[in-house]
Amino acid sequence: MSRIDGRETAADLAAYTALLEISEGLGLSALLDRPEPFTLDEMMAASALMEPAAGHLLRALLGAGLVEQGQDERHFVPCADMADRRYAAGYLSWSLNANRPYIDHAAEFLRDPDSAGAQYQRDGRRVAVSSRWIGSFGFYPGVVSEITGRKPRRIVDLGAGAGGLLIHLLATLPDSTGLALDLSRAACEEAQRAAQEARVGDRFQVVERSVESLVDDPSPVRDADVIHAGFVMHDVVGRPHVLDGVLRACRSSLADDGCLVVTDAVPYAAGERERAFSALFTYLHSSSMDVRLPTEEDWHEAFRRAGFTKVSSTPLPMPGSRVFVAQD
Amino acid sequence: MSRIDGRETAADLAAYTALLEISEGLGLSALLDRPEPFTLDEMMAASALMEPAAGHLLRALLGAGLVEQGQDERHFVPCADMADRRYAAGYLSWSLNANRPYIDHAAEFLRDPDSAGAQYQRDGRRVAVSSRWIGSFGFYPGVVSEITGRKPRRIVDLGAGAGGLLIHLLATLPDSTGLALDLSRAACEEAQRAAQEARVGDRFQVVERSVESLVDDPSPVRDADVIHAGFVMHDVVGRPHVLDGVLRACRSSLADDGCLVVTDAVPYAAGERERAFSALFTYLHSSSMDVRLPTEEDWHEAFRRAGFTKVSSTPLPMPGSRVFVAQD
Repeated sequence: MSRIDGRETAADLAAYTALLEISEGLGLSALLDRPEPFTLDEMMAASALMEPAAGHLLRALLGAGLVEQGQDERHFVPCADMADRRYAAGYLSWSLNANRPYIDHAAEFLRDPDSAGAQYQRDGRRVAVSSRWIGSFGFYPGVVSEITGRKPRRIVDLGAGAGGLLIHLLATLPDSTGLALDLSRAACEEAQRAAQEARVGDRFQVVERSVESLVDDPSPVRDADVIHAGFVMHDVVGRPHVLDGVLRACRSSLADDGCLVVTDAVPYAAGERERAFSALFTYLHSSSMDVRLPTEEDWHEAFRRAGFTKVSSTPLPMPGSRVFVAQD
Repeated sequence: MSRIDGRETAADLAAYTALLEISEGLGLSALLDRPEPFTLDEMMAASALMEPAAGHLLRALLGAGLVEQGQDERHFVPCADMADRRYAAGYLSWSLNANRPYIDHAAEFLRDPDSAGAQYQRDGRRVAVSSRWIGSFGFYPGVVSEITGRKPRRIVDLGAGAGGLLIHLLATLPDSTGLALDLSRAACEEAQRAAQEARVGDRFQVVERSVESLVDDPSPVRDADVIHAGFVMHDVVGRPHVLDGVLRACRSSLADDGCLVVTDAVPYAAGERERAFSALFTYLHSSSMDVRLPTEEDWHEAFRRAGFTKVSSTPLPMPGSRVFVAQD
């Protein structure tokens, strides 16, 4: 009767995302991301669920194929492509969960962005979790290989959040030291804790400050071999003299042969691979976050104004994202 | 540096869905679903947006490729595969928007479903809109071809909602009459209005009643050639004697050679094509809506208990969905 065709990819992605969000909310992501099998008891301990509730959720994860039966009936194994599924889920979760207030109140944001912005905020945890899921393949691997390939002794991460990228870099580069700068006290505390846990705490420094503050006091970036800024510089582009000041502070503080690595999104990337998500990303930043993303040319000009002479720009897998490397 | 591969399908689907939800909220779906070009003025009239807000959103729809430039710069055309994109968006929107309360409060629903159910409800409009988007290819075409192929003179739709399916059937079958039964007064009023608008009002009757009520008074289904029940019978399966009573009332009321067409979802469909979405659908109904979906065998037995002798079951494109046709 009806054609049963292949168009249900969307149904699979939606189901994986909903079940991964439910599992994340129950504290089960660590179990689902590890390669070792887990037991129902471990699932109950991690989620504080009792039977039959825990078994109920496990049945759904097994049914969906996110988890498979292990070698015996007590053990369960996350599916082999969990990392790919979490990456894909990141896009759905960022677009439809983290940005929910901007979708539900789109008319108000379009008509009166200031008052809508004062009234409706995103949930920081939803933004952080979904951004991390996107980043897992969308931009972290590209940034990490760009930075580790340079074997920097000192790395500074601007807008470091909970420190995930820098901690990973220091674990990979055992002779390097790093500084994480972030405006948020909660993020800084979490970064300090995570660095201790990852045993890089003795090479890891946290500074609770804004990126803008580097204009007046560039000491956090002094003598860095690599300064990284991921999706944070676009917050200051609305004030061009601040952007210029930050870029100049970075350039004059870099060690010899050091470089500034900026990961950010360009507006309305036009290619088929990028255009849909890039359009949503650009629209939401502009309509609801008061951020006009600079174009690739804007970035090149800003780097040149600050005195950088060698600037490259490379697309990363996240549609619209670019990694800029500025030197000299 | 980084592999730019094809895994960003999820990003495209997420972006289309967010932009279609925003457009739906602004009253723009009718413009986006019609084949004719539209102007910015029409968009402003439909959404009550002024410039530059309307142009801002149009820029995003153009950037994403949901809308294309028409023959001149004043005209814009919805993309040729809008129907496919809306169908795909339905799965994301149902899973991650309509069911949001069940995801956000999953722990509470798992621990104490009664009190969670009393506290957190879904938004009926979000459920109806996303179900309609899924249904556009997921189950309506299969059900429509099943029913129209029989050229029924009288059609009764149980749980008819806003009457969309029945109105479409009556428009296709100009000599048929129909009755829409629904529990919701708002849905019944909307169905009556929509039937008038579609010029089938003189052949269209609305009854504001529950499906259960047919046990005591089967008059609404009397002499029907086709009785259809889409995703509504599973609400009464928790009370087997009610289900049996409803099925018997249908069977004894059908005209000669009439049939009962039930569209519903089976639990935990196991095939690769169905398993992920079917697992989410089953889990959400069971954990958060107090609905244990009957298996295919359960349905066959229930039909047989009610006296039906010929029962067929066919998968429809929505993963887990089946159309049952019961005769005799």
